[in-house]
Amino acid sequence: MAIDIYWGSGSPYSWRVLLTLEYKRIPYRSHLLEFSKQEHKTPTMLRLNPRGRLPVLKDGEFVCYESLAIMAYLDRNYPEPPIFGKSAEDSGNVMRLISEYQSYSEAHIDKITRTIFTQRLEGSTEEVSAAVQAAAKESRMLESRLATAHWLVGNAFSAADAVVFPGIQLLLRALERREAQDLRGRFVPLDANFPSLAAWVRRIENLPGYDRTYPPHWRG
Amino acid sequence: MAIDIYWGSGSPYSWRVLLTLEYKRIPYRSHLLEFSKQEHKTPTMLRLNPRGRLPVLKDGEFVCYESLAIMAYLDRNYPEPPIFGKSAEDSGNVMRLISEYQSYSEAHIDKITRTIFTQRLEGSTEEVSAAVQAAAKESRMLESRLATAHWLVGNAFSAADAVVFPGIQLLLRALERREAQDLRGRFVPLDANFPSLAAWVRRIENLPGYDRTYPPHWRG
Repeated sequence: MAIDIYWGSGSPYSWRVLLTLEYKRIPYRSHLLEFSKQEHKTPTMLRLNPRGRLPVLKDGEFVCYESLAIMAYLDRNYPEPPIFGKSAEDSGNVMRLISEYQSYSEAHIDKITRTIFTQRLEGSTEEVSAAVQAAAKESRMLESRLATAHWLVGNAFSAADAVVFPGIQLLLRALERREAQDLRGRFVPLDANFPSLAAWVRRIENLPGYDRTYPPHWRG
Repeated sequence: MAIDIYWGSGSPYSWRVLLTLEYKRIPYRSHLLEFSKQEHKTPTMLRLNPRGRLPVLKDGEFVCYESLAIMAYLDRNYPEPPIFGKSAEDSGNVMRLISEYQSYSEAHIDKITRTIFTQRLEGSTEEVSAAVQAAAKESRMLESRLATAHWLVGNAFSAADAVVFPGIQLLLRALERREAQDLRGRFVPLDANFPSLAAWVRRIENLPGYDRTYPPHWRG
């Protein structure tokens, strides 16, 4: 029985799970739901996830939500290639990078992207500018890791890459908006500001199956 | 070579790691640092963790910080008894409960406890009251899980219990303060409001080695 994945275009949490599925070459039935039509909050979806959020995994009778939980489940059932570390040290470092992203970057990236995408930049530029500065500081740490390595932890793609990558992509997309032109200098062009991070982005974009993970509404 | 653990009294993140060590009966050298003396920000500690936060693990040459990362590392090196789930399903559920705690409870508990402990309750009662309400709503979900189970996931203590428990204890301790008397009704007494959660708290308090994890400055 194939795995069912319910996801939303542009949701960084959904993207993490799609990257995991493609990287592990796990067969899945893809259910792209439209946030704008509230398809993630239908009675059927709320029965699967009472919080009405995406992504959701259904594997036979087992239902799971929260991106990291789905990734942990998949990694146990399809252990090769592993994404939570080959050794105990890698395992600790994968979770460390994920925790650091969640604790020190995610809220800033969320603030920046939400404000820009909902066109509320005017009036909160100072706040968003501080968030850009904080996100840039954290990105410098990633840059310095990636200066001597191809992946955030160990010698292969891991859950740390899967967690951080969609956030960086979302941030770049928001900063490309015309109204963000005064904010984007610290990041855009990424090649000039964070060359190792830019190479890492391209490395992930070149993974097999990447195209199937790319937010459909971002195309064209 | 024994593991070195650097921790702070009353830090819920430190408490998670101590619970893990005791549950797995892993030998460790305990280094209790004094936050009030800034012992977590000495040059030696900043070399171990540039963020100057606790807990920190040092195992030979390997250094790790961020509580979940330390727990993941320990679970790989000392797999019995497992704390991240025996099966793929349990593994997904453990991470789901942890993610839900982090996404929907932690910020509220943090707001409540910080405001009370730093004696800034006056002037922010409305905000804190909303946080208490949100934390109570999440606790009702835990209560309903624990009504039919001894542990948050599966049939044994797991990382989910280790993550949630210190937050609940910290919350209860804050609400016991005299100045919080108008706020505490939703939680205190816990036996009346959340009987299954109260039984679960006692269950953890009865785990072997629990006393060594209890914040020393809370005694007496």
